[in-house]
Amino acid sequence: MTETGSPPQVHDDPATDADLLEVLQALSDPVRLDIVRQLAAAENPGELMCRQIRLSVTKSTASHHLKTLARAGITAEREAGTSKFISLRRDDLDRRFPGLLDSVLQAAGTR
Amino acid sequence: MTETGSPPQVHDDPATDADLLEVLQALSDPVRLDIVRQLAAAENPGELMCRQIRLSVTKSTASHHLKTLARAGITAEREAGTSKFISLRRDDLDRRFPGLLDSVLQAAGTR
Repeated sequence: MTETGSPPQVHDDPATDADLLEVLQALSDPVRLDIVRQLAAAENPGELMCRQIRLSVTKSTASHHLKTLARAGITAEREAGTSKFISLRRDDLDRRFPGLLDSVLQAAGTR
Repeated sequence: MTETGSPPQVHDDPATDADLLEVLQALSDPVRLDIVRQLAAAENPGELMCRQIRLSVTKSTASHHLKTLARAGITAEREAGTSKFISLRRDDLDRRFPGLLDSVLQAAGTR
């Protein structure tokens, strides 16, 4: 199993305003919020195969949104064989922005 | 003292995804995040006179950002005499999106 796709970002430095703004921006789109919600609800904690994510947009639009989430450090991507897996970087996010993801999921998750 | 400017929004209905996305979008701009941070730090809890808010943008740009925050339900505006006051709708936000504003302020507030 190799890690490919967007290189995993290392966020050991304190989060900056720019990081926070990028995360808020990434979450403020209906398709991306839907992706995050589906990942959060996944049984294998926070991870789904790309093709398991149900979206009402074209593949290339979905791919664009997945890239935006990965760039913001919200998701990680890995490939295994011919499958691509997307996971929620919950621990990283909780460390960088305590409470943020939970509050967004709470607001978005119960409807 | 009369309430003018953006009409105070009443959010008695459960918050929708659209409401959440609007709040996240409104917070995901450096100028608007700065305004929210200044309001949160204000001594008179969460309220500042318009002219007390220090921004490095033109008055019309600032006005645009203030409108965006008010529309999203993040701030309220009132006029008293010739002064305009902006306040953070902390209780409303906490009720609609528990923990969201706190987590954003925590991430943004200590730098």
